[in-house]
Amino acid sequence: MRIDSVDLFYLRMPEVLDIGDGSQDALLVRVVAGGVTGWGEAEASPLTSIASWIAPMSHSACHPVIDSVLGERIDSVADILAITRKVRGNSFYAIIQSDLTLSGIEIALWDLLGKVKEEPVYRLLGYPRAERKQPYASVLFGDTAEETLQKAIHIRKEGFGAVKFGWGSFGRGSVVADRDQIHAAREGIGMGAHLMIDAGTAFGEDVQAAELRLPALAEAGVLWFEEPFAAAALSCYAQLAKSSQNVRLAAGEGSHNPYQAEHLIDYGGIGFVQIDTGYVGGIADAYRVAQYAAARGVQFVNHTFTSHSALAASLQPFAGVKEFWITEYPIEAKSLCSELTTNKIEIGSDGMISVPDRPGIGIEISLEAVKKYVVDVDIRVAGRVLYVTPKL
Amino acid sequence: MRIDSVDLFYLRMPEVLDIGDGSQDALLVRVVAGGVTGWGEAEASPLTSIASWIAPMSHSACHPVIDSVLGERIDSVADILAITRKVRGNSFYAIIQSDLTLSGIEIALWDLLGKVKEEPVYRLLGYPRAERKQPYASVLFGDTAEETLQKAIHIRKEGFGAVKFGWGSFGRGSVVADRDQIHAAREGIGMGAHLMIDAGTAFGEDVQAAELRLPALAEAGVLWFEEPFAAAALSCYAQLAKSSQNVRLAAGEGSHNPYQAEHLIDYGGIGFVQIDTGYVGGIADAYRVAQYAAARGVQFVNHTFTSHSALAASLQPFAGVKEFWITEYPIEAKSLCSELTTNKIEIGSDGMISVPDRPGIGIEISLEAVKKYVVDVDIRVAGRVLYVTPKL
Repeated sequence: MRIDSVDLFYLRMPEVLDIGDGSQDALLVRVVAGGVTGWGEAEASPLTSIASWIAPMSHSACHPVIDSVLGERIDSVADILAITRKVRGNSFYAIIQSDLTLSGIEIALWDLLGKVKEEPVYRLLGYPRAERKQPYASVLFGDTAEETLQKAIHIRKEGFGAVKFGWGSFGRGSVVADRDQIHAAREGIGMGAHLMIDAGTAFGEDVQAAELRLPALAEAGVLWFEEPFAAAALSCYAQLAKSSQNVRLAAGEGSHNPYQAEHLIDYGGIGFVQIDTGYVGGIADAYRVAQYAAARGVQFVNHTFTSHSALAASLQPFAGVKEFWITEYPIEAKSLCSELTTNKIEIGSDGMISVPDRPGIGIEISLEAVKKYVVDVDIRVAGRVLYVTPKL
Repeated sequence: MRIDSVDLFYLRMPEVLDIGDGSQDALLVRVVAGGVTGWGEAEASPLTSIASWIAPMSHSACHPVIDSVLGERIDSVADILAITRKVRGNSFYAIIQSDLTLSGIEIALWDLLGKVKEEPVYRLLGYPRAERKQPYASVLFGDTAEETLQKAIHIRKEGFGAVKFGWGSFGRGSVVADRDQIHAAREGIGMGAHLMIDAGTAFGEDVQAAELRLPALAEAGVLWFEEPFAAAALSCYAQLAKSSQNVRLAAGEGSHNPYQAEHLIDYGGIGFVQIDTGYVGGIADAYRVAQYAAARGVQFVNHTFTSHSALAASLQPFAGVKEFWITEYPIEAKSLCSELTTNKIEIGSDGMISVPDRPGIGIEISLEAVKKYVVDVDIRVAGRVLYVTPKL
């Protein structure tokens, strides 16, 4: 069958705050073929990605994404891979936002194909079953160490056996302040839980500044230290990896193609590669990274800070790999993201989760929520309407 | 002084063809501060970059570029570097198109600062003088080897001592067809001129396919073999570099930050690093790559396929380095690009060029051409007008 329609929706909260919380808006993609609907989300500035979807062609390497998707065949996994190749082949120069836009579309295509074939996506990827995984709560540091302590105590009480703290003022103040934050987090969750720390690229290219945080991280026995540097500062990662024998590094969420994630493994010395399926190019590209990591003794982890639809899409690529046991689980998402799906990936009585055993990505979108949060967009070039928010 | 206004213009030819010719449209940036105007061009899908300029904030790492530029101080080189840091710090996730948008703005800031200080940009960068450089003509392969031969003869007659052929069907047909194209190019320009071949990423990740082209490239004595693979396929570059002792590799035009160019040097084994100042983040980031290359015995070359304004901006970062002797010189640009500037970088009687000894980037924009080619754009979100084409 042919792809009949592809619609992009810009959803957002009534108020968007200047904080490290990616759940305040969303780019939602709906694909229809043969009367079946698939949904996907991209981790992308919605307006910028919508522009990359319909921007007039600049030259043969700078097509809008729409040129490579609409009207294509979608009967098999091979068709999805062919569409990705086409987008990457037609839109690889001067329209780099297209990598993110593609991610949302590709996920929607898998969701659609899974529904048509009545199979969960992980089975289309060749995994016989989805393994149970340990969810970790991903939360922002408190403004003070005391606030972080209280947050940590609260999260531990909710039953999470693994917690990640990040962003806020971490890495932007003194070494002592960061040490206090790390220790507060550890004290709050106790010794029985896994602790991870996310610097949110705060140290830029300053290896020494990051090294000064290592003793506290080692004392607190963190599972990983995440994104100390700019996503592409490979030599900084490599240097820090050498001097941080007791602290493994994690990075990769900024990878907008599989190569960048592979470089962090090959040249950056990371121990955990974190992939956002809605950013890296979609499910097949995330799967490629998972296989690459598995072959090199690096652990693959999803990056998900938004909805359970994004979570389900991010779990599929490594659902069947038992060694990849930990998974990011958003717990502070704004109402937009919590209302967006009619079902959720619930934490079981064993404290574990797995991807739903349902066709497609296994999560249903709430049309009501889409209607509630959708924002009208209108883009005209030379008097021609190139985009208006599609009908629901 | 403060930046009073920043305006982005989408210019384009009445007809845009599906060919590898980046001169068919342009994203032009005008910055005004203290009554002085600076101009810059980004190598970017104009509509997508305009969206990244004004897109509503998604979260603290996904600001529109405008948030980090408008109202900032611009009195010194340090101020330009601070603006780049601010853009990269506020817009590093989910709005990756911002790297290209930044490039055009940053160039306009240098142009403005040079005009205020009555100095060419290369002197603000610390180079005492601009060295003469050998321009190479950059042209598309003909559809047939015979057509390429005639093109090559014609270009050689025009006096170019170095010619690059690329794109078209190269790498997309048989090894024999490519060999014939390479030999036709060499035959047409003669043995006395430098020949370069640009595969335009045609081989994706297929190292073997690229290797099959090496004998013809070596026979023809090419100066470099450009972009056989996807821009980020570092391990492919490294593999081919090992087996191509007689043929040096060139790449880098796809670098939208300095890191990516540095990775091609550190891990890809390239001999020439090609940087588009309107893509990598602007003049300071291109300068960073030039210094990095110089320290590692790799030759820096500009990537410029559009206007003489883009050419002047791309020459500044390596203007003062004598060892970087060759420079891309667009000769097939569409009328939009040839009319865009009131002065040009002319080839001297010695067959050489240098960046103009004039304040700023040294090239003036024709307001008449801007008026002729500008396209009306109108972007509304939730009923609010976020962008309309600015007045000239």
